Amino acid sequence: MDWSGIPDHAARNLDSLQIEIPSWGFANTGTRFGKFLQPGAATALPEKFADASEVHALTGVTPRIALHVLWDLPNGAADVAEVRRLEAQYGVRSGSINPNLFQNQEYKLGSICNPDPAIRQMAIDHLIDSVEIAKTLRSTDISLWLADGSNYPGSQSIRKRILWMEEALILVHDRMHEEQRLLIEYKPFEPAFYHTDIADWGMAVHLARTAGPLARVLVDTGHHYQSQNIEQIVAWLLHLRLLGGFHFNDRRYADDDLVIGSIDPYQVFRIFVEILGEPDRTAIADIAYMIDQSHNLKNKMEAIVQTVMIAQELFLKAALVDREQLSELQEAGKILEAEECLRSAFWTDVRPSLEEWRMSRALPPNPLRALRESGYVERISQERAMRNAAQLSTYA
Amino acid sequence: MDWSGIPDHAARNLDSLQIEIPSWGFANTGTRFGKFLQPGAATALPEKFADASEVHALTGVTPRIALHVLWDLPNGAADVAEVRRLEAQYGVRSGSINPNLFQNQEYKLGSICNPDPAIRQMAIDHLIDSVEIAKTLRSTDISLWLADGSNYPGSQSIRKRILWMEEALILVHDRMHEEQRLLIEYKPFEPAFYHTDIADWGMAVHLARTAGPLARVLVDTGHHYQSQNIEQIVAWLLHLRLLGGFHFNDRRYADDDLVIGSIDPYQVFRIFVEILGEPDRTAIADIAYMIDQSHNLKNKMEAIVQTVMIAQELFLKAALVDREQLSELQEAGKILEAEECLRSAFWTDVRPSLEEWRMSRALPPNPLRALRESGYVERISQERAMRNAAQLSTYA
Amino acid sequence: MDWSGIPDHAARNLDSLQIEIPSWGFANTGTRFGKFLQPGAATALPEKFADASEVHALTGVTPRIALHVLWDLPNGAADVAEVRRLEAQYGVRSGSINPNLFQNQEYKLGSICNPDPAIRQMAIDHLIDSVEIAKTLRSTDISLWLADGSNYPGSQSIRKRILWMEEALILVHDRMHEEQRLLIEYKPFEPAFYHTDIADWGMAVHLARTAGPLARVLVDTGHHYQSQNIEQIVAWLLHLRLLGGFHFNDRRYADDDLVIGSIDPYQVFRIFVEILGEPDRTAIADIAYMIDQSHNLKNKMEAIVQTVMIAQELFLKAALVDREQLSELQEAGKILEAEECLRSAFWTDVRPSLEEWRMSRALPPNPLRALRESGYVERISQERAMRNAAQLSTYA
Amino acid sequence: MDWSGIPDHAARNLDSLQIEIPSWGFANTGTRFGKFLQPGAATALPEKFADASEVHALTGVTPRIALHVLWDLPNGAADVAEVRRLEAQYGVRSGSINPNLFQNQEYKLGSICNPDPAIRQMAIDHLIDSVEIAKTLRSTDISLWLADGSNYPGSQSIRKRILWMEEALILVHDRMHEEQRLLIEYKPFEPAFYHTDIADWGMAVHLARTAGPLARVLVDTGHHYQSQNIEQIVAWLLHLRLLGGFHFNDRRYADDDLVIGSIDPYQVFRIFVEILGEPDRTAIADIAYMIDQSHNLKNKMEAIVQTVMIAQELFLKAALVDREQLSELQEAGKILEAEECLRSAFWTDVRPSLEEWRMSRALPPNPLRALRESGYVERISQERAMRNAAQLSTYA
Repeated sequence: MDWSGIPDHAARNLDSLQIEIPSWGFANTGTRFGKFLQPGAATALPEKFADASEVHALTGVTPRIALHVLWDLPNGAADVAEVRRLEAQYGVRSGSINPNLFQNQEYKLGSICNPDPAIRQMAIDHLIDSVEIAKTLRSTDISLWLADGSNYPGSQSIRKRILWMEEALILVHDRMHEEQRLLIEYKPFEPAFYHTDIADWGMAVHLARTAGPLARVLVDTGHHYQSQNIEQIVAWLLHLRLLGGFHFNDRRYADDDLVIGSIDPYQVFRIFVEILGEPDRTAIADIAYMIDQSHNLKNKMEAIVQTVMIAQELFLKAALVDREQLSELQEAGKILEAEECLRSAFWTDVRPSLEEWRMSRALPPNPLRALRESGYVERISQERAMRNAAQLSTYA
Repeated sequence: MDWSGIPDHAARNLDSLQIEIPSWGFANTGTRFGKFLQPGAATALPEKFADASEVHALTGVTPRIALHVLWDLPNGAADVAEVRRLEAQYGVRSGSINPNLFQNQEYKLGSICNPDPAIRQMAIDHLIDSVEIAKTLRSTDISLWLADGSNYPGSQSIRKRILWMEEALILVHDRMHEEQRLLIEYKPFEPAFYHTDIADWGMAVHLARTAGPLARVLVDTGHHYQSQNIEQIVAWLLHLRLLGGFHFNDRRYADDDLVIGSIDPYQVFRIFVEILGEPDRTAIADIAYMIDQSHNLKNKMEAIVQTVMIAQELFLKAALVDREQLSELQEAGKILEAEECLRSAFWTDVRPSLEEWRMSRALPPNPLRALRESGYVERISQERAMRNAAQLSTYA
Repeated sequence: MDWSGIPDHAARNLDSLQIEIPSWGFANTGTRFGKFLQPGAATALPEKFADASEVHALTGVTPRIALHVLWDLPNGAADVAEVRRLEAQYGVRSGSINPNLFQNQEYKLGSICNPDPAIRQMAIDHLIDSVEIAKTLRSTDISLWLADGSNYPGSQSIRKRILWMEEALILVHDRMHEEQRLLIEYKPFEPAFYHTDIADWGMAVHLARTAGPLARVLVDTGHHYQSQNIEQIVAWLLHLRLLGGFHFNDRRYADDDLVIGSIDPYQVFRIFVEILGEPDRTAIADIAYMIDQSHNLKNKMEAIVQTVMIAQELFLKAALVDREQLSELQEAGKILEAEECLRSAFWTDVRPSLEEWRMSRALPPNPLRALRESGYVERISQERAMRNAAQLSTYA
Repeated sequence: MDWSGIPDHAARNLDSLQIEIPSWGFANTGTRFGKFLQPGAATALPEKFADASEVHALTGVTPRIALHVLWDLPNGAADVAEVRRLEAQYGVRSGSINPNLFQNQEYKLGSICNPDPAIRQMAIDHLIDSVEIAKTLRSTDISLWLADGSNYPGSQSIRKRILWMEEALILVHDRMHEEQRLLIEYKPFEPAFYHTDIADWGMAVHLARTAGPLARVLVDTGHHYQSQNIEQIVAWLLHLRLLGGFHFNDRRYADDDLVIGSIDPYQVFRIFVEILGEPDRTAIADIAYMIDQSHNLKNKMEAIVQTVMIAQELFLKAALVDREQLSELQEAGKILEAEECLRSAFWTDVRPSLEEWRMSRALPPNPLRALRESGYVERISQERAMRNAAQLSTYA
C-alpha cells in the first residue's frame, strides 16, 4: 500500500479514472414543462470552458470537456480556432464531439433515417462535418446519439430505416481517421415514443460492426428498460471488444438524467466491478467516461463536482474487491460468500482514503466544500445573471 | 334498434359521449429536446377557439374547450370578458379551468408543497383565482395537476409536504361554489424524478376526501406505472364515488401523450366497459372526458379529430357488450366464455355504424376526410405561418 | 378474390400459417403457489397426442406437437419408437424438440454455464442427445431455452459464463445435421432473478452466430422488458436473417404465459405485419410458430383452440394491410394516413371470412363451438380424473 | 454515546429493531419451474422452531416465528397445544398468523372474491379460524395476503369482487379481539396475471378502513410496480396511521423474494429513514418487521442470518441521519446539502459498530461466521436429508 490503507492496485486504478464533462452540463436545461433558470448557468462557450476548468482545478480528474457541435461550434469548422484558443486559456482540452441530429426542423421524421433522401444527406453531411471538426481538434471520439424514431405504429417503415442507418454509418466511418472512434449510443425511447431506431445495445452492436472497425458502443446508464441488468450488458460489450464508453447519469423512471449513483449506487458499483474485471488493461484504458446529466434543480457547478466525487467513490469501492477470492468462491459455487465478498468492498467507507489521495495530489480533500469556500458560484451568478433571465420557455 | 344494427342503448350511450378538447392541443408542443413547429399551430386564444369550433363542426361532440389560466387568461379575471366573447363568436363553451403551478420560476421546489410559505401562498392564491375565473365562466371543473416533487432522496421532506397539500386544498375547496368540482390528478413522475407529491390514485383519493365533498379524482390514462391495470382503478373510483373524469391519451413508456387508443386500444375499451357497467346513471353523466395529448409530429387538427373518432369507436364497442350475458358467465365461473363475450364486442367493426350515426345527426360521416376536404388546415397554415416560425426552443 | 371478400394474397397467407402446439400445454401447470388441477389434463404422452390430434381436427392448422425431452421421452432415444407409433396413430407429427436444462438438481447454479465442468458436460450431453432424438424423429428444430443465471450480484461470474455458453453451443452445433436448426431463446428473468445468461435478443444473436450457420433466434413474445417494442426486434431479426421462430403467448407483467393477443392484440398484429412485410418468401416460410402458454385456470383444450383462432384472426388482419399504399404514405411522410392504413386492416372484422375459409376446407366454422359440441372435454375429464387428482403441489 | 462511536439515540433505535422470521423461510421453496432441494431444509414444525431458535441465538433479535396456518397448523386449533409446547422448548414465540387462501383447489377463481358464495364462506371461515388460533397463541397479528384475481379481461367482475371483499373483511374484523390486528397486504400481480383484487396500497387502505379500527396495511417491499417509490408509500401510511408492518425482501423484476437490500440497499435505507422520522414513537413501536423471502439457491439458514444482519446495518445507517440538520436544509431549500446529509449516513461503515453492539449484548459479533463455525447447517443437513429428497416437483 502506498497510502491511507488502500492497496496499490486500487490507488493505481483510481489514478486512471478520468471523467469528461459536457459543455451542456453548465447550461440551463429542463423538462418539456419548462426550465428553472440559474443565474450562474453558462451560455457562451468561454463560460463553459471556465466552469470546466474550475471543476478540473477542484477535482484534478476532468481535463476534457465534451463539445456539442450545434451549440458550441454553430459555425462548424470556422469555430475551431476559437475552441483551441479557449483550450489554451483554460487548460482544458476538447473531449468528445457531439453532432446534433435532433434539433433542426428538417429532422421531424428522422435524420439519417428520414424517408426523404435529401434530409438523410443533410444529416450525413453534418456527421462528416463533425468528424472533420474532431480531426482538427485532435479529439478522438465522435459520440453519436440518434434521436430518430416514430410515434405511431405504421407511420414509418422500421425495416427500411435500418438500411438507411447502415448506409449512413458506412459513409461516415469512411471519412474517419484511424485514430478516431465512432461511439454509437442506444436509447429505448424519448423523444420518439413508438419506436426508436437504435433502441438497445443489440442494435448498436450490429450498427457498430456494420459501420467498421473504428465504431464502438456507447452506454448511457439511463438508456435502459426498467430492471434491465446494465452491468451484464457492460460485460457483454467487453467480451465483444465493443465497449467504447459511458454517459454517466442515474434514473428512476425514464431517462431522468440525475446524478450518477444518486438513485442506485450499488448498480454503478457493479458496472465498475465488471470493467475492472477485464483482464486486458488496454481495453480498459480505451473506455471513455463522460457525464451526461441534466441538473434542472441543483446548482450546476455543485452537481458536477458532486458527480465526480460519487463516481470516484464507487470506482474505488469496485477497485477494492478481492478479485482472486471472488473468482475462487464463484467457481466453488459458494454463492453467498461470493456475494459477501462483493458487498464487503461496497460497504467500505472510502471517503477518508479519497481525501488522502486528493491531498497527496495537491488537490482539495473535499472538492464540494472547496467549491463552496471559493465563492466561484456566487461570482458567476453575478456576472451572468442578466443574460440568463432571458431564456424563458413554455410548454405550449 | 333505431338505426344501423346498433342496439338502442348503445346509440343512447354514444349520444351521451362528449369530449372536451384542450386549448393547448392546438399549440406547438414538444419534448425537452425541442419543438417541431407547425405553420397552422394556434398561438392566440381566438385561433384556439376557431380550431375547437372547427372540430366541433366536424364531429358534433366537442362543445367545450379546456382553458389554461396562465396561457389563455394571462391577465386572470380581466380576460374573462374576452373569453365569453369568443364563446359566443365560435359557438364553443369554456370547459375545465386549468391552473398552472409548474411554470413560474418560484415553483422550482414546488408550489403548494414548497418549503417556503410565501410561495405556498402564491400557489394557493393562483388556485383561488382559478376558482373565481371558473365561477365567472360558469365552468364546472377545476383540473388540478400538481407537478410538485423532488429529484433526489433527502432533498425534501415527503411527510411535511403531505401536510402542506392538505392545508392548501382545504383552503381552495372552501372558496368553491357547490356546483363546482375540484378534479385532482395524479402522476408517478415527470417533471419530478425522485418523488412526486401526488404520485398515484391512492394519494389523490386521500387528498380529495380531505379537501371536501366537491373534490374528485382525475385519471390521466398516461399517468400510471408500467403494467398497472387502469380499468381496475376506474372500477375502484366508481365504487368510491370519486371518479371525476379523464385526461385521454395513450403511451408506451412514460407520459408519452399519444393519441388515445393508438398504442393499446383494448385497454381503452376496457376502461369504457367499466364505466358503462356502473349501475348509477348519474354517476356516469358526471364523468368529464377531456383530451390531454401532445401532437408533436402529427398535424394537430387531424390528430384531434382522429382522437375523437377513436374514442367514439372504442366507446361504442364497449356499449355493445352484452352485459347480462357477461354477468351470468362471470358468476357461473365460465371464464373463457365470459372473456369471449367481451372480445366479441371489441372485434365488432363499428365504423359503418358510426358513419350512419353521424349522418343521422347531419354530421360528415368521416370527420377526418371532411377535414381534409375542407381545406381548413391549409388555410390556417397560411394565415399563421409567420408567427409560428418564431417559437424555436433548444434543449440547452 | 377467391372467397368471402378476402383478397387472394391474404387467403394464401392464411393457408401458410401453421401453428405447433406444445405437449405440455395439455398438462397441469401452475405458478409457484400451486397448480389448479384439471380432471382432463393430459399426463401420459398418448393423451397429449390425442389432445393435439383433436385440436388439429378442429382447426386444420396444427399438424405438429412440440415435445419436451425430459417429460415426453424420459428414456431418451429409447422412447422414439413409441413417439413414432403415436404419430402414426394420431396423425400428428413431432415438432420441435425441447431439451430441459432447468429441472435437474445439478442445474442449481446453471447448466451449460455451471461453474462445475462436469455439470456443463452433463448439460451438453443432454443437448446432443436431443439433437440425436430430433434426427431420428425427423424434427427440424431444437428449441433451446436456457434458464441459467444467478440470483445475487457477485455470486457468479457473468463474463466466464459467456465463454462457457459459446463453447457448449459450438459443440452442440457440430453434431447437427444440416437440415436441423438450433433455435436460441432469450428471457430477461425467471427463474433467475439477478442475471439471466441469455437475457435479450442481442445476446441470443451473438450466440447464434457463434454457434454456427444452423442457429437462429427464437422470440418468445412474453420474454421482454416492459414497453419493449417486440415488432421492432422481429424486424431486426428478419433483417439479420436470424429469425427462427416464435413462442406465442401474451403477458401483462412478467412471463405470464397467457393466451396470445388476450392482453395486447394490437401488438401481435404488428408482429405479423412485420413478418408479412418481409420480401423474401423463403425467409417467411422458415419461421416456426409455436405456442408456449400456461393455462392455469382456463380449460386447456379450450384455451389452445382459442389461441389458434386468435392467432389466425390477427394474422389475417395483418395480411389485409395494403402494403403498397402503406409504403407510399410512409415514404411521403404522411404519418397519420400511414397509421390509418394500418389501423384500417386491424379493425376489419375478419371473423366471418375465417368461418368461410374454414368451411371451404371442410373444417368446422367455429372450432371453439365445435369443441364444446363434441363432448371431447367431458370425455377426457372422466377418463383422466383419477390420475390428475394425485398431482398436488405446495409452495413451501 | 454509550459505545463504539454510535450516538445514544441510534443505539436505542437498534435495540428496538426486532425481526420476525417466517416458518416457511426454512422450507424448500422454488419457482414454477421446480425446487432445488436442500438437505437441511425444514419440513416438520419442530425443525422450523429449531432453526428459528438457532437464528435467535445467533442474532438476538428474532424472538418470534411467523406461522402459516395451512402448513404449520394443518389441523387448525387442534395443533395449538403442540405449537405452545414448541414455543417453550425452543424459546421462540409465535408471531403473526398467516391464513392461506390460495392453495385449495376451491380457490381457483378466488377465495373471499370467488363468485360462488359457498367458497367465499369457506374462505371467511378459514380467516375466522385463523383469528381464533391467533387468540389462543396470543399472537397479535393476522397477516392477510389475498392471492385473488383473474387472468383474462372480462372473465370476472372487478366491481362485484370489491363488494365481496368488504363484506368478508367486516365479518372477520368483527371476530377479532381488540388487541389483535388485521394486516392487509397488497400485490400487483402473481399468481393472478390480469387483475389482482388488492393490487396496491390505495386499495389496501380502503379495505383496512372498511374492515374496522383493528385493520392496518402490510407493505411487502417486493409488491410494487417498477420504479414505484416505496418510502413515499411508507410516509403516507405513517401519515394515515395505517402502517401495520413489513414483509422484507428485495427484487429486481417481479416479486423475486430475494434477501432485503441485496439488490437496492439505498431504498431499504430510505424506508427506514421515513420510519425513524415519525415523531410518534408509539406508532413506530407498532410496526411489525417480518421477513418474507424465498431462498431458492442460497442455504436457507445462512440467508436468513444474512438478512437479519443486512436489515440491522441499513437500519443503523438510517438511525445515524442527523435529522435536525436534515430538516433545516430541506426547509431552507438547500437540496444538494440535504441530500448529502442523507448520503453521509448511508456511507458510514456501521459494521464495526454493530459488532461491538452485539458483543455488548453477549452475542457473536458476526452471526454469519458464528453460524458457519457452529456446524449447525451440516448437522441438520445430515439429519433431514432423506426426507427432503422426496419433495421433487415438476413444472408440467
